[in-house]
Amino acid sequence: MWQSELRNFFEPRGVAVFGSVRNLSGTAYGVVKNMLDFGFSGKIYPVNPSASSGEVLGLHVYSDVSEISGDIDLAVIIIPPRTVPDVVSQCAQRGIRAAIVVSEGFAEVGEEGKDLQARLVEISRRTGIRILGPNTLGVLNTSNYLVTTPYLIGYNKPLKGTISYCSQSGLLTFGTHPLRDRAYPVSKVCDFGNKCDVNEVDLLEYLVNDSGTAAIVMHLEDIKDGQKFLGSARKAVGRKPVLIFKPTKSEVSAKAAASHTGALAGNDQVYDTAFRQAGVIRVNSWQEFWEIPRVFATQPLPRGNRVAIITATGGAGVILVEEAIRVGLVITEFTTETKRKLAVLSPRLAQNPVDVGPLMAVSIGSDPIAVYERSIPIVLEDRNVDCAVVVCPGNLAIVDVFRRIADCISQLLKPVTVFCYGVNLADIQETVRQLQNLGFPAYLELEMAVKALGVAAIYSRIKGRAPIADTYSSQD
Amino acid sequence: MWQSELRNFFEPRGVAVFGSVRNLSGTAYGVVKNMLDFGFSGKIYPVNPSASSGEVLGLHVYSDVSEISGDIDLAVIIIPPRTVPDVVSQCAQRGIRAAIVVSEGFAEVGEEGKDLQARLVEISRRTGIRILGPNTLGVLNTSNYLVTTPYLIGYNKPLKGTISYCSQSGLLTFGTHPLRDRAYPVSKVCDFGNKCDVNEVDLLEYLVNDSGTAAIVMHLEDIKDGQKFLGSARKAVGRKPVLIFKPTKSEVSAKAAASHTGALAGNDQVYDTAFRQAGVIRVNSWQEFWEIPRVFATQPLPRGNRVAIITATGGAGVILVEEAIRVGLVITEFTTETKRKLAVLSPRLAQNPVDVGPLMAVSIGSDPIAVYERSIPIVLEDRNVDCAVVVCPGNLAIVDVFRRIADCISQLLKPVTVFCYGVNLADIQETVRQLQNLGFPAYLELEMAVKALGVAAIYSRIKGRAPIADTYSSQD
Repeated sequence: MWQSELRNFFEPRGVAVFGSVRNLSGTAYGVVKNMLDFGFSGKIYPVNPSASSGEVLGLHVYSDVSEISGDIDLAVIIIPPRTVPDVVSQCAQRGIRAAIVVSEGFAEVGEEGKDLQARLVEISRRTGIRILGPNTLGVLNTSNYLVTTPYLIGYNKPLKGTISYCSQSGLLTFGTHPLRDRAYPVSKVCDFGNKCDVNEVDLLEYLVNDSGTAAIVMHLEDIKDGQKFLGSARKAVGRKPVLIFKPTKSEVSAKAAASHTGALAGNDQVYDTAFRQAGVIRVNSWQEFWEIPRVFATQPLPRGNRVAIITATGGAGVILVEEAIRVGLVITEFTTETKRKLAVLSPRLAQNPVDVGPLMAVSIGSDPIAVYERSIPIVLEDRNVDCAVVVCPGNLAIVDVFRRIADCISQLLKPVTVFCYGVNLADIQETVRQLQNLGFPAYLELEMAVKALGVAAIYSRIKGRAPIADTYSSQD
Repeated sequence: MWQSELRNFFEPRGVAVFGSVRNLSGTAYGVVKNMLDFGFSGKIYPVNPSASSGEVLGLHVYSDVSEISGDIDLAVIIIPPRTVPDVVSQCAQRGIRAAIVVSEGFAEVGEEGKDLQARLVEISRRTGIRILGPNTLGVLNTSNYLVTTPYLIGYNKPLKGTISYCSQSGLLTFGTHPLRDRAYPVSKVCDFGNKCDVNEVDLLEYLVNDSGTAAIVMHLEDIKDGQKFLGSARKAVGRKPVLIFKPTKSEVSAKAAASHTGALAGNDQVYDTAFRQAGVIRVNSWQEFWEIPRVFATQPLPRGNRVAIITATGGAGVILVEEAIRVGLVITEFTTETKRKLAVLSPRLAQNPVDVGPLMAVSIGSDPIAVYERSIPIVLEDRNVDCAVVVCPGNLAIVDVFRRIADCISQLLKPVTVFCYGVNLADIQETVRQLQNLGFPAYLELEMAVKALGVAAIYSRIKGRAPIADTYSSQD
């Protein structure tokens, strides 16, 4: 029952969009334009009393929602705050079950706004219409390309994938990150806004049941009902990883949070313990919020925490060893068999980290990149290896290598991440995109590649399928 | 005396390059090609016995260094390791005072290599020739575009600037980061390699006296002589910031470090205390190594640690407040005068963080970006503000804003950093480049913008010019 309600926000047959249809970013026009640019597969009904009988972007503009005869499952509302309650009431009356209130000017601006927001809550309780926001950019769904932000995105729509991002701030949803240019595998995005009705518990329960979502990532400044959230999270993590970025730790930042969403942030220490007990994994920066979840989109879970490092530079090996230990991974010792196989390529390769740099240097003129193709499968076949990180030049030759060994890697069911370096930004970014399209999370930040594996190993343990090594694994 | 020796590595009149002149990356040809591509202002003399009387890239190839009649201050050597000692001896005999041994196969590969390296040390001691390496990519100097890496860089030469980067690994020098595409302000780069002679102390003392260097950044896995380094660092930090990225902390990573440069890493706790006492600032990741020093290239030092945050999204404000506190900054309270001026723009702006988002939203159709132009000077003029971070959309309109207020900001002598967000990667990267060219360190990672200010404030205190506030500054 409950699930079908939230589905209206992400899979509506028709969407009524209320607000100005003037050709500007930040208006109902912007919402309609984004949906058309993205190719939303449902119907779009612009509604504006003063622009009635007109057209916008080839769509008829209705003066009143009651005039629309088609199926409408969702209203997107971007009108002056005082007029919002009446429009939400009309929507409820028309049988619309879900409304996204994009408009600002509610609990975040003071007493008058709080009263207005209370009226929305009252309408929702009375009529059963569910409300996302107010003060939100709404949602994105890559399975039907529904998108409700009023700020023009152009053709930068994210690619279809399995990571769902939720946030309490527009900063971590739309319009703030080049998701498409970086080939992020996105399923759904949701901006909670002021959370007058729909909140993190609703989304968590919806997304854990959503077959299109493999991992749930949430940016939260506060949690409305801690016990309920932790209860839902505890159940969710048995099925999917739940990652939380909760920046509010100090009193000062709690004050800042209150001033922009009107909520209180709570004691961080309490949250930290509760998250850990519930199996929720914290990420600690804006960049980790975006980057780390990618490891869950296309890679299998590691069966343990023993990592192998294959690197073109010894310096990267040292940095990655340190970071791996910090995130709870163990630098594995290869079996004698693996060492023997690696030693055939070069005696100096027979240890972890595998420093392929010197062999690349002497392969000049032949094929310096080939050493990756030969060494990665040997390393991943080792029973002492649960996951691997590869440091390599960011160029199309390495993409070819991964294309050739992708099948072999996928049969071994061990996650692999990649860090790409290089002098030419366009080249390394294109390499990262192409590797991502092959299913390998590739990173432009060195430590992120091993942090992601560390988080994958932690989740694997939470899910109960991974034994965890505390020290060097025994050699054989 | 000493300084003039190191100068040969960075400002040679002529450079002899020993090794294969076959058209391949990773050879002496690569070194010559890079120097020609970059436009090195000195003379280049390729030396190769078997290719003698030939030409490479329009340059005469000499069979022996003794045949060259011009001034040679530096030799760059990329030949089989066993043949290196003889060539270094010949160079010393020819009166060359500095040699960069790019070749691998020395202390990093075992006993035989260690013996070879010991012979280099012996030659250096006996003849006075200084040796950088072996196992190094050498140096870069943007003031004459000397570059000695054998790996082809193309035209991606870094722009002239004042940050000098030194590293014990090729990973943090050339060929691993798009310094040019990101408009990094680079002065000199040095790869230490195995440090058989020239080491971190030499570079520290050279760079502190180098008028082209405003900040010194070093990646170190080990320190040869801790007492000497700390003594030099203590003197250096009175004149320039010294930032160290030293990843080697655990026994396991120490082992990895030993296997690629043949050195021991030491106890991290001891280093940490010693660095702090000497006034050396640690950075903690590959990304911080590259990104944080930029704040010292073009911005003044803050006179204290009180930060103002101007942001288009409240969510960014919360995250930045948290990070600011973590790095030792204080979220300042504006004076009544500042609050009054900000309230004229909008009552909701009159607090720190200054959330310009709502005002931008209601300025749709006029000029939403204009609020930055009005609010940034008001904030920076506040006597309770020592530095500011600006969160803004990454587009050319914001570049115009900063261009118009750049003079005003520079007169106030308070550092400003910028975080740019957006959906289009090319747009935000171009914005970051243009802001950097205007002198404003702009970042693609949110927290980095405030981390850089935190480090600037720490250095300002080390240099003895900054009083440090521990709590909210008093209002007036």
